[in-house]
Order: sequence, then C-alpha cells, then structure tokens
Amino acid sequence: MALRRALSQRLLTAFWQGSPEYWPGTQRCLTAIPGVDPVQVQQQRSFATADFSFTPPGRNHLFVPGPVNIHDSVLRAMDRPSLNHRDPWFNAFFKDILEESKMIFKTKEGTTFIFPGTGTGGWEAALTNTLSPGDKVVTFRYGQFSHLWVDMMERLGLDVIVVDRPWGEGADEAKLAEILKADTKKEIKAVAVVHNETTTGVTSDIGQCRQVMDQADHPALLLVDGVSSIGALDFRMDEWGVDVAVTGSQKALSLPTGLAVVAASPKALAARKSAKSKRCYYDFEDMLKTNPGGNVPYTPSIPLLYGLRESLALLKSEGFENVIKRHHRLAEGTRRAVAGWGLKLLCKEPRWNSDSLTVIETPEGIDSGEIVKAAYTRYNLSIGVGLSKVAGKVFRIGHLGNSDEVMMLGAIAGTEMALLDAGVNIEPGSGVKEAIKYWQSTSKVIPTRG
Amino acid sequence: MALRRALSQRLLTAFWQGSPEYWPGTQRCLTAIPGVDPVQVQQQRSFATADFSFTPPGRNHLFVPGPVNIHDSVLRAMDRPSLNHRDPWFNAFFKDILEESKMIFKTKEGTTFIFPGTGTGGWEAALTNTLSPGDKVVTFRYGQFSHLWVDMMERLGLDVIVVDRPWGEGADEAKLAEILKADTKKEIKAVAVVHNETTTGVTSDIGQCRQVMDQADHPALLLVDGVSSIGALDFRMDEWGVDVAVTGSQKALSLPTGLAVVAASPKALAARKSAKSKRCYYDFEDMLKTNPGGNVPYTPSIPLLYGLRESLALLKSEGFENVIKRHHRLAEGTRRAVAGWGLKLLCKEPRWNSDSLTVIETPEGIDSGEIVKAAYTRYNLSIGVGLSKVAGKVFRIGHLGNSDEVMMLGAIAGTEMALLDAGVNIEPGSGVKEAIKYWQSTSKVIPTRG
Amino acid sequence: MALRRALSQRLLTAFWQGSPEYWPGTQRCLTAIPGVDPVQVQQQRSFATADFSFTPPGRNHLFVPGPVNIHDSVLRAMDRPSLNHRDPWFNAFFKDILEESKMIFKTKEGTTFIFPGTGTGGWEAALTNTLSPGDKVVTFRYGQFSHLWVDMMERLGLDVIVVDRPWGEGADEAKLAEILKADTKKEIKAVAVVHNETTTGVTSDIGQCRQVMDQADHPALLLVDGVSSIGALDFRMDEWGVDVAVTGSQKALSLPTGLAVVAASPKALAARKSAKSKRCYYDFEDMLKTNPGGNVPYTPSIPLLYGLRESLALLKSEGFENVIKRHHRLAEGTRRAVAGWGLKLLCKEPRWNSDSLTVIETPEGIDSGEIVKAAYTRYNLSIGVGLSKVAGKVFRIGHLGNSDEVMMLGAIAGTEMALLDAGVNIEPGSGVKEAIKYWQSTSKVIPTRG
Amino acid sequence: MALRRALSQRLLTAFWQGSPEYWPGTQRCLTAIPGVDPVQVQQQRSFATADFSFTPPGRNHLFVPGPVNIHDSVLRAMDRPSLNHRDPWFNAFFKDILEESKMIFKTKEGTTFIFPGTGTGGWEAALTNTLSPGDKVVTFRYGQFSHLWVDMMERLGLDVIVVDRPWGEGADEAKLAEILKADTKKEIKAVAVVHNETTTGVTSDIGQCRQVMDQADHPALLLVDGVSSIGALDFRMDEWGVDVAVTGSQKALSLPTGLAVVAASPKALAARKSAKSKRCYYDFEDMLKTNPGGNVPYTPSIPLLYGLRESLALLKSEGFENVIKRHHRLAEGTRRAVAGWGLKLLCKEPRWNSDSLTVIETPEGIDSGEIVKAAYTRYNLSIGVGLSKVAGKVFRIGHLGNSDEVMMLGAIAGTEMALLDAGVNIEPGSGVKEAIKYWQSTSKVIPTRG
Repeated sequence: MALRRALSQRLLTAFWQGSPEYWPGTQRCLTAIPGVDPVQVQQQRSFATADFSFTPPGRNHLFVPGPVNIHDSVLRAMDRPSLNHRDPWFNAFFKDILEESKMIFKTKEGTTFIFPGTGTGGWEAALTNTLSPGDKVVTFRYGQFSHLWVDMMERLGLDVIVVDRPWGEGADEAKLAEILKADTKKEIKAVAVVHNETTTGVTSDIGQCRQVMDQADHPALLLVDGVSSIGALDFRMDEWGVDVAVTGSQKALSLPTGLAVVAASPKALAARKSAKSKRCYYDFEDMLKTNPGGNVPYTPSIPLLYGLRESLALLKSEGFENVIKRHHRLAEGTRRAVAGWGLKLLCKEPRWNSDSLTVIETPEGIDSGEIVKAAYTRYNLSIGVGLSKVAGKVFRIGHLGNSDEVMMLGAIAGTEMALLDAGVNIEPGSGVKEAIKYWQSTSKVIPTRG
Repeated sequence: MALRRALSQRLLTAFWQGSPEYWPGTQRCLTAIPGVDPVQVQQQRSFATADFSFTPPGRNHLFVPGPVNIHDSVLRAMDRPSLNHRDPWFNAFFKDILEESKMIFKTKEGTTFIFPGTGTGGWEAALTNTLSPGDKVVTFRYGQFSHLWVDMMERLGLDVIVVDRPWGEGADEAKLAEILKADTKKEIKAVAVVHNETTTGVTSDIGQCRQVMDQADHPALLLVDGVSSIGALDFRMDEWGVDVAVTGSQKALSLPTGLAVVAASPKALAARKSAKSKRCYYDFEDMLKTNPGGNVPYTPSIPLLYGLRESLALLKSEGFENVIKRHHRLAEGTRRAVAGWGLKLLCKEPRWNSDSLTVIETPEGIDSGEIVKAAYTRYNLSIGVGLSKVAGKVFRIGHLGNSDEVMMLGAIAGTEMALLDAGVNIEPGSGVKEAIKYWQSTSKVIPTRG
Repeated sequence: MALRRALSQRLLTAFWQGSPEYWPGTQRCLTAIPGVDPVQVQQQRSFATADFSFTPPGRNHLFVPGPVNIHDSVLRAMDRPSLNHRDPWFNAFFKDILEESKMIFKTKEGTTFIFPGTGTGGWEAALTNTLSPGDKVVTFRYGQFSHLWVDMMERLGLDVIVVDRPWGEGADEAKLAEILKADTKKEIKAVAVVHNETTTGVTSDIGQCRQVMDQADHPALLLVDGVSSIGALDFRMDEWGVDVAVTGSQKALSLPTGLAVVAASPKALAARKSAKSKRCYYDFEDMLKTNPGGNVPYTPSIPLLYGLRESLALLKSEGFENVIKRHHRLAEGTRRAVAGWGLKLLCKEPRWNSDSLTVIETPEGIDSGEIVKAAYTRYNLSIGVGLSKVAGKVFRIGHLGNSDEVMMLGAIAGTEMALLDAGVNIEPGSGVKEAIKYWQSTSKVIPTRG
Repeated sequence: MALRRALSQRLLTAFWQGSPEYWPGTQRCLTAIPGVDPVQVQQQRSFATADFSFTPPGRNHLFVPGPVNIHDSVLRAMDRPSLNHRDPWFNAFFKDILEESKMIFKTKEGTTFIFPGTGTGGWEAALTNTLSPGDKVVTFRYGQFSHLWVDMMERLGLDVIVVDRPWGEGADEAKLAEILKADTKKEIKAVAVVHNETTTGVTSDIGQCRQVMDQADHPALLLVDGVSSIGALDFRMDEWGVDVAVTGSQKALSLPTGLAVVAASPKALAARKSAKSKRCYYDFEDMLKTNPGGNVPYTPSIPLLYGLRESLALLKSEGFENVIKRHHRLAEGTRRAVAGWGLKLLCKEPRWNSDSLTVIETPEGIDSGEIVKAAYTRYNLSIGVGLSKVAGKVFRIGHLGNSDEVMMLGAIAGTEMALLDAGVNIEPGSGVKEAIKYWQSTSKVIPTRG
C-alpha cells in the first residue's frame, strides 16, 4: 500500500508538471508559445484591443470533453452587473434553482447543493460529509480522473480498496460483488464509482453496481462521480440508490467552471452526523441551515446562478429525455465516423460506450499529440489530448452539453484534416460520410419549426 | 422604357410581398410558423427567459451571404453602455476609424464616410451626391441587387440605360465599350456596376470596366456597389479609378447591420458641387464639414463604431492580403464540394466566380427552397434561398466575413444532409471530402501557434 | 429669404466645424485630448486590453439628453450573434415589434415604421413621403434642432415659412392661427413642429397647435419631431391628429442610435401618393409592401430590434402612464434643484417646461462650457453643453429614458461640484437638498417590493 | 470552552436561518416577496423576456460592501465563450495573472494562488496548509466574519484562543503582546487577524500586530483575512511579515464571486510540510506542482481569469497607490456625510476607520433594517444590513472596489431619502453637502483629460 501510494504520487507529480513521463507526445503543444511576445503582437495592432496574442478569424472550435460550448442565451444570462444576494429577490430565485437542479439527477428524494467550486470540490464534499478518516472505501481505477479521486481519498485519510482496471474498461461488477461478499463485518463504508471516465470514454453501469450491492445486502453508501455524465447521460439517482452524486458546471450544464453541483440522499445526509472528516467550506451543514430559506453560507456567484437557471430552463424546454437522446445520437454518429476512418475506440465493450465523449486510439507509430496539435495550430479546433497513461496514444472528441449535428460535423471533418496532417492513413471524407448518413437518417424537425 | 418600368415594378411588388411569383419554392419556409404561439411556448418554460419561441441546443449556423457571423471579440467590443459622442474622447476615436477604413477600399486618395444606415443607403449616397435628376447612367442588371439599384436610380429620376444580362453572368465589358463609344456627346454621367452580385455569386471585373472607360476616354464617374465584396475580395479603388464605392457593416466587416460605409474619390467630391439631386440625410456635405474634426452631423452608433474599430483591427492583424486569400481558399473549397456533389454553379464562367458566396443550381425537379427549409428546420443551419428570378432554382452558401475552414465544413456537411432530405441524389460525403482535401493540402499554421 | 438662407448656412457651417462662433466656451473641452497618445497609453498597460486611452474607475455618468443610459436587460437583449432575418422566425418577431411600438405614440390608427437610421432620417421620411418640392410648410424655429429641420426642409426644396421664436420659448399658437387664417387658398401643405426642443428644454403644446388648425379648418398635415419626447412625455398622436411623428432609438427608448421610429396617420399615407419628393431609402412605400408580412425591404439590425423589443417590454411592464409620470417626477425634482441653486431655467414659461431635460442658464461671467468640462474631466460626469446660439450660456441635464432618482441625485450632486469648480457661487447641497425633499415625499414602493 | 462553543453554535444557527435572534429588524426585508408570483409577472409581459419579477427603470444601485460594482470593461472581458485551458495559450496567460496579482498584496517574496472558490475557501486554505489539528491559534473576534473564522478554526480542530472585543473596536495589540509573552513554550502556532471587519467597518492595524510579535520574538505564523481590504487598502504583506493573506474576487477586485486569491510567504510554504490538517481541494501542493508551468490542478474559470486580468490592469493603469488614495477619499467623504447627518460610526476610534465601508449607527428607536428596506424597495438602492449582534442597530455603505464620487453621491443622497422614510430626524441635504464639499475640494483631473 505504501509502495502503491508512492508510485501513484510520482505519477501525479509528473502529471501536474506536464513531464514527458505523462505527456510524451503532447509536450510541444502544451508548453508556452515559442518566439511570441504577446505585448509585441498587441503593439503591432496599432489601435485595437488585443485579447491574447493573435486572434484568428472564425472562432475557436471547442470539442474537448469540458469545458464545453456555452449556449448564447446562457452567455447572455450571465452577462450582468453585480447584485446583492442579501436583497429579498434572491431567496425565491435560489430556491427555484436548487429545486430545478434535481431534474438532471432524476431525484425527488435527494437534496441538491450548489458550491462555488469545481467537480473536484464536489468529490471532497461527497467524501468528507459522509465518511471518517480510516473508513474503508472500495473503488475502481480506470483512468486519470478515477486515479485522482483515489488520490484524494488517500489524502483525506480513507482506507481505499482500489480495484485497478485496464484503461478502456469500466467498473467490474463481479469483482465488486466478490469484495462486498467477503466483507462480512460490513466494514466497507462506501462504494465510490466514476460514472463516466473522461480519460477513456467509458461509462460504467451504476445500476448494476447497485444491484450487486443489494444482492450482497451491503449497507455501504454509493458515491458517484457524475462530472461528465450528469445532465447528459441517463443518471437515475433515486432508482439506482445513489447516495452522493457530483457534477460540475462546465460539463453537461454547459456553463463556465465555478459550481460544484451535488445531490445527497437522505441516507447520505444521515451519515454526515457520524462522519468525522473535518470539513468546513464543503460542509453540507451550513448549506442545510441556510438553503431552505433561500440563503447561502457565503457569497454566491450571481452570474453563474443566472447561467445555471437558464441552462436548466433550456434542458427543460428541450425535454430532458430528449437531451439524453440527443447525446446518444451525437455520440453514435461520432462512433460511426471513427469506424469509417478504420480507427478504434479505446472503450473495449459497446456496453461501456460513452455518449459524453469519444476516445480514439491512433495507429502504431502515430503520436496522438500531433493530431491535437495540428487541429489547434492549423484549424483553431480544440480536441482533447490523451492524458496520463494513454498520452500520445489516444485523442478525445467531446459531445456533451450544448452541441448539435452541424457542430459535430465540423469537428469530425476538421479532425479528418488533422489526422491527415499527422500522417494517419485515412480516406478523406470516410468518417464524416458515416456521420452524415446516420444523422440525416435519424434527424427530426426542431420543435416549432415543423 | 415605361413598359420596362411597369414590369420591373410588378416584379418588385411581388418580391416585397413574398408572393409566389418570386418565392415559388420557399413560400412555406418564409411564412410565419404555423401552429406556434410564442407566448404559450414561453409560458411552458416555467421559470426562465424565453428568447423567441423554442431555442434549440447548439447554435444557429449562419451561412447566408450577410448578415454574417460576428467575431467574439467584436461582439465584446460592442457590448457597452452608451457614451456621449460630444465628449472629447470621440474625436480622435472617430478620425482613427475613418482613416483605418480606407484599408478595405485600398484607397489613399479617397474620403471615407460612415452613415448610420445600410448598403441601400450607401447606394443612395453614391447617386444623390454625384448626379442630378435626368442624368444618364449606364448600368448592368444581372441579379436582384442590381435590379434594386436600377429601381432606385429610376425613382431618383435618373435616366438609366440598363444592360440586362443573364443571371449568372457578369458585367459585359464589350457592351459597355460599345455604349460609351456611341456616347460621343459624353452625356453619360456615370457607369454604375454591382461588383459582386449576391443573388448569383458572380463577381464582375471592375478593373476591366475601368479599362474600357479609359479606352473610350470617357469622363463618366464609376460608381460601384461593393456591398458583398469590399473587405472580402480584392477591391482596388484607387487603381481602378472607382469614384464612389459602397459597402455595409453586416457583410465582410462582420458587424450587425447599421452602417453604410462609403468611399468617394476627389472627382466624386467635386461632382457633388454640381449634383442637383436633393439630399440631406445621405449628403456628403454635412460629413465633410464635421468629420475632419472628428465630429458627426447627427448622433452616431457608439456600439457599431467600437465594433467597426475592432473589426478593422482584426483584419489588419490578420494582414489584409491574407484576408483576401482566406476568402479565396474558403470559396474554392466550397466550389470543389459542389463539384463533388455533381451539382453546378449558377455562375457561368470561372472568371466571375465569387469568393464571397457560392450559388448552386439544384437539379430539375428539385425545389431549392426545400433544401433551405430542411437545413433550417432540421439542423438549425441557415443558408440562403434563391431570390426573385432564381427562387426555387438555386441556394446560396455564404463564406464572406468572419469565417474559417471548420465552420465551412460544418456548413457543407450540413448542406449534404439537407440535400438528401430534399431528395437530391448525391453521395453522402462526396462534397465535404473534396473540401477536406483542398483545405488540408493548402492550410497553414495560424500565426503565433507555430 | 436668400439672405436668411445664407446666414443660416454660415451658422450651420460654424456649428459643424465646432468653430468658436458656435462653441465659444466649450472649445477646449471639445478638441482632441492634448498631449495624449492613446497607443502609448495602451502600451503602458503591459498585459491588458485598453479600450480608449485611460479608463477611470467607477463609470461614465451619462446625463446628456441623448444618447441615454441603456437598461441592463436591454444591453443583454442586444448582445447576440447575427441571425438571418429571412428565416421564418423573423416575421412574427418583427410584426410584434411594429405593433407594440404604437404604444409610445398613443396611436391605434397610425402605421409605425422602423428605419435603420437616426431621428434625422425620420425627419426626412416625414417630409419626403408627404410633400413635393415647392410645397409650403409653416414651422417654428426656437433651437438648434428646429433650426436643422428647417435647413433640411429648404435643402429638400420646400417653401418654408419660418416663425422665429426666442430660444427658451415654444410654439406660438396665436401666430400659427394668424398664418393659417391668412392662407385662404390653403396653399400651406404642412405645419411642422418640434415637440420638445432638446437645445432649450422647451416642450411645445402640440394639442394646442392642432386646435388652432381645427379652428382654422385647415387641411395641412401636422408633422411632429418627437425625437426627445415620444416614449417619455405624453404624446397623443391620434387625439392630437398628428400626421407624421418621428423619434429615434437613442432617446426615450434608451437604445443605441440606429433606428428612426416613425408613425404615420392614414392621411399621411394617402398624401404619399401625390408627394413628388424623390425618395427611396426613407420611402414608406417599400415598408408598406413588406412590413405587413413581417418582412423588410433591406437588412434590419437584429440587435437593435431585440433591444427595441425589450425596451418596449420594460415600458409596458412599468405601465406607460407610469413612465410619463416618472419623467415628470424626475424633471420636477431637477427643476427644484435648479431653484435651490438660485439659477434659472432657459425655458421661459412653466407650461413649456420639458420633462425630458433641464436647460440651465449660467450667471453672467460664467462660461457654461467650463462647468461641463469640469464635470467630465474631474468626475466622469457627462452633461450637455449649450449648443449654437446658447453655447457658453447654458448647460443641459438629461432625464429622459432609462433613469431613476438615485441616478439623478448623483448627477445633481456631481453638477454641484462642477458648478463650484467653475466658480459659480452656489451653496453646496442647496440643489440636491431640494431634489431629495421632493423625491422622498413623492416616492412610491417599487412594484413587487411592497 | 465547551460552553462557548455551544453558544457560538447556537448563534451561528440562528444566523444561517435568518432567525429573529440575529435579524431582529431586517426580518421582513429578508423574507421572500409576499404576494408576488414571478411566473405571473412574466406572463403579464406579453412578448418579452422577464428576468426576475419586476425590473424597475434605471439600475440597481449597489453599495453593499461586496459584491461590488463590476467595471464595464471587466464585464466585457468576462463575456466570452468557453476556451480550453489545456491549449497552449493558457500557460503564459495564467502565469502573467499570478505574477500581476502580487501587486495588491505588495509582495515580492510571496507566492500567489488562485482557487475557484470564495474568501471562505481562502480561510480554509490559510489554516489547513499551515496548521495541524490541536495547534494553538490566537485570534480576535469583533464581528460576524471574525466570528465565522473562529468557527471554522474550531471545526478544523484547532485550539483557538479567542480574544473577544467589542464590536466597533479592532485588534488589541496590548492583549496580543500579553498572550504571546505568556507563551514561553512557543506553543502558539499562528496569530490570525481579520484586517478589515466587514460587519463593523473597523480596520485593525496589522503592522502593529507584527511589531508586537517581533517584540515577543514569537515564531507564530501571521495569518490575515484581507477579504475586504486587499486591493483597496494599503496592505503590505512583505513589510508586515504576513504569512498567509486571503482575499476574494467579489470585493476590491470588483469581480463576481468565484475566486479565492491567496498569497503565502516562504515561511508559510515551509510550514505546509509539517501541517497535518487533511486537505485536498484547497491544498497548496497541487498548485505548487502545476502553477509554475502555467497549469492548474483542476479546471479554472476562464471568464473569471479574464476578468481578473482586466481588473488588475485597471488597478495598475490607475496606479495602485492612487487606488488606495481613492478609497481613502471616498471613505472620508462618506464619513463627513455621516457627521453631517449627526449620526455616529460604529467604529470607536478614528485609527480603525475603514476605507472599505462605513458602518453607521441608527438613533435609539430606529430599526436600521427599515432604512435598508426603504432604500431597496423605494429607490432600488442596495445598502448593507446590520449583521448578527448589530442587526437593527447599524447599516453599512460600501465604497470598496470599482467606485467613484458621483456613484457615492448618489448612494449618500439616496440614503438620506431612506433615512427620512424610516423616520430618522435628519436635515435633507445635510450629509451630501459635506461630501460635496470634501470631494470638490480634493478632486483632481482624470488622467488624459487635462
């Protein structure tokens, strides 16, 4: 265990530092821009406001799996002066948002919390509000984000039973069953699962995990990282008996980073009373004291709350089931494009296919970082690099959040150009053709445009 | 002449009324949304700000040949409170903009004017500041916009010699030579040419027109509608001896509608002294009295001026010759896509190919309005309908202004889906493949990203 | 007449050129910023986006009588990407706006037009659509804007009977009665009146003018410049029998400049059939052909239309009669502040007091330009200079459009500082005290905050 | 100690719940809006986008001591689409911001951190990165925020020595000296001081605290809450030997809430190695591993970083010493207004006068909540309620961050109206008069407007 901890720590350090150990292929594209002095660039523009170095025509085409494209009406909702959250308008406004947030978790029994923070903060809330140092937690590690969550658990003093899985595979329900069965003393306090692993494009089956827990008649809490799934994929908090579910504003909610949105079951709320992890900022307690009256324990971000309100309204007006279907259609079309290219998904079984993002393996001899670099430097197209263990080996195309077919077609066609630039032997048009066929044959008329 | 006038008037009326005479195929898509009550739609969204009826996820993909996509940094530059243009900051600010505007006209000798208005207003400025009722003007009519300019000339009392040309062809320099030669008394006061006809995707050769005028040693003024060319195509006001050139903010300058940007040669400015056309709002005179001191005769639009300043700065920072090359590359890739589909351009000769927009003929039996409708109603993709004479027969894809390869690839791939929806027999991917090949092989690294 | 024309022209030229003849006191504050190189200032800010030279903390406090402060929700409504006005959403959207615009004119019989242009363009529309060159028009001249309208009438070839009035007085109804009575042949085709003269803070009595016309049983059209009144003051188009009424977006509608909003009576629409003034851009005809179907003859400004829609919605939600009352309260409080200072209004009779702006005379020996300059250079407070004949003698405080008590209190208190800076002998607090007393005693609870 | 803890907990609970125990006077104004159904209000606005219930004309006048008014150019800088922070532009961009942030701390030796969070999160970072459970900390409690920090310390398991001070007084340096002297074993690990107590308008003397520590030759760390001081007041991290200093984006930096900006001395960074407090989200460690390369351990808020960059640029362009002087001038003018009213500051000694906000006591028999309520419900003016112990007894006017004289004059004059509404016996104009006199006599010409 100490050895594993040390190893894990070394890899983490390398990850943070962007060392070649973790970023073999993408190193060049991730260091500062050589030979460019932004001030000088700005001065060359004799009378205008430079933003940051050169601003190309068109727009940045953003297809990383978060942050994602913000809807214009959300951008508008956020663009406003400060307001005083202690003025009386705030209470009904905030309570509404807390209530409407339940939709994306599919929960009626749960309590939602909105912390000024990130998904990482949401992880911390999930752990510290329900567990005590030394508590046993069983979890899976199959990508960089599950890896980081494990790291957090260890730093918070939990006793973590890590089930390592090949990157590209999901939660192993059989193994979970075995562990829970062996835990005759019910010492395991929580099962923690990353629903959608954003490193690998793998969606684990939370419903199955719950079934295994039920079959083992195990009282452990079920804590789920839904950062890149909730709001995009079918997440059924109540049905699956999830105890704490976590997401962040910059993923399916299509907002800027800055809100950790967390839902807790009654069982989780009860657990907080015995949880001895020290906590304050991410403590549910202060929220529970203030939120019912529409108040907050510390200053909220007014623009993000307006943005969240608009984002939820857009999801609701689309129909949340339609949102889930849209993610599936966009993902399936993208997967067909990958097949058209003759390339492979990192995801090893169709049942784990992620509808949030697609992670594609590059052929032997091709550094995936070169593809990402070509996309960014030639076409202003931002797609995701391979992270950590799979750096250089895969690239990632996001389709979660605010997206549509024409956006994805641009991303796929642009990626084809980048693949060609990087020397991947594909037939031009071979991917986009398959996406066109799939989306054209499955498209429907947009409501009110019939 | 009276007959022609009457005919022209009947067609115009039909055009304005959206009658089937002009909009045979697109009628359905251009009437109000049947069965939708926006208020009701809004009320269904229980707690949010409805914009206008249903707002789909993603974004509206705008590829009409104006209005065009506004650059994010221009949107930002315009989003500001009111300011007082009589405060001293305004003078240097405005003079700078007037001066920098000369870049897109390639003029040093010309004087630029910025009217709160549209390109149509710019037309009126060009005519009324230089001509008197009864003056002879020779012009070509080869599309809806040249048609409308002729209509304006007639309403302003000019004696218009219209050279009608098939829609899809450009200015006939030989015919012009003939007319000028025949005008031994030099009664023709102006030659008026639409540089880029936005109805047909045809760019006429202004340099050749000038050469013909020089060869005829004819003193007529050369007035040019550059609404959909200036700022995008190579427009050489000084070299070509253009006397008044007109553009509008919502085209290559990629701003909202609201500014008529006009440049006048010294000869045009001299002509205004004898021009008896009554004018006031669009009179150069009041501008000439105030602009040199950085003042304006009536309240200017502060947001649009900030936007224009930023737009010019972006063009300058890209390098204006690069802007022209970019338009050519985007247009050429689009034309290759059209060839890949096996469809034809409306433009009849390569020398007239427009780099501002591409106008595509649909096969016999296919109503082009159905393609435009499918694009809009299924994919939130806005492409241009065929106007007037070619309604139902062509559709238009714009690539002028703020655009890039990935945007165009989305537009082309989306159009493929709409073509299939409308029953056009194309091979999926056949167009986008050609665009990918062309753009990938001709792309360069974006400055500062090398 | 020729002499008057020449004189008028000389003064106009001086006005446009900002010559000392018209700008005696304000000259320094209206020339470019001496010793400041904006590029250099920008370069000193090593890593940021300079807007225009130095940007002070706080905000620019804008209290000129147009452009006025834009409401935050209007700014938001306008901050959006381009949209295609030929897509079907536009028709219902635009028809709604045309219809709702009638509210501010208090007209049911009138037809509203929205031109991309300014109030000056609206003037031109009013004249050219109803009159022919040589037509007799009777009008009053009592400020710079009535002066400019007269200038336009003359340039458009009308035969203008100008009744000059002292600046500070309004329309002389007795004189009008006399003129109309004398016109036994009914040769006068129109009576043209500036409702609220923005140079002097004088509101003329349009209802009285109509009564005089009715008493004379005179068929002339009644054309009214309501640029700085409509939307703020009680303007009763139908009741007063106004034939064409004109306003601009940057005044009471509190938008950026860019829309001329015009309403025409059935009688005015009928008059256009015989009106021989040449016109095209500002012709009602093309609007009448297209507007009923929700179309426009040339590209509209989408952001401004969204802004207008929101602005009208705000006025409607406040209750339009409440809007008028608010303007009266804000104006009356400002006038009490002026009395508190011991200064005088330029307006010579209370019945003409303008609720759009207050124009204040400075004591002998004080150049009003120095007050305006101190306000701007020391406190970032923009108040209006005296224009033309009253330059140096008066300054102007606007309260039309989007305004409230606290804003006006800042303006009044800031003006007190500027008065002291300029050497005016007032007691600090003497004005603001009176405004506080008046507004505190007449204030009501804001709806929904009771 | 246990008793104190329990008491403190009861008060906190009451505070969070908005119970009358803490909110005696302000209760009505802090509950939801009675009788108003926002949906219904929205439906009454037949065709427009309601924001939240009724939106009055003018603007919300925000003068609470945070959140504060955001500068227009900062709002603009933040209004942008998402960008990928893993693209190479980010590294130089972020390193610049970290570096420029040192300015407001006046530190060269310190390391700055930017956490997605709030000032409360910054407190947690300061404590957990430097201390271990059981460590002794000495601190002062003289307002709601010092009270909350103490609560956090206790919940994080620290052994807190609380020096209670009357609300309205600052840090007692003599008492601190005494405690440190008595601590012969040097068991006290940290001295924690709230620099500016936002509940009371009291600024403690950090330099004096340092001097006392030096005189005692005590090795404790000096941790400072500068949430409502840093960026506005003269804060000298290096000179005063502050080890961790904390601020939040929504105070002097004039941004929306969402960033905890923290600076740590080399000594603090060394302390983290032995600090055993469990931490992850707010751990300096992950930042130290990534920030030097311009990277971050989890997704940053792109809009807030652009906003921070612009905010720092504005402070720099004003000259940071001028920023401090401006805060002093605005505060001093406000204090003179309070004296003019004949009211008293809560702050008991001039040496503690806060230049961030002014806290004013109301006379016997007047509930300060009524003043705040009148300001908000009648004039759309947001001033701060009295919190906790001083609820009903004081109200607060903020002047930190983006502010200027005319804004403050509006706030003061508006407050006069609210005082009169609430029955406070003041002479109208008596306060604003004094502010006018002070600011007029001390004003300077704005740079570039000379």
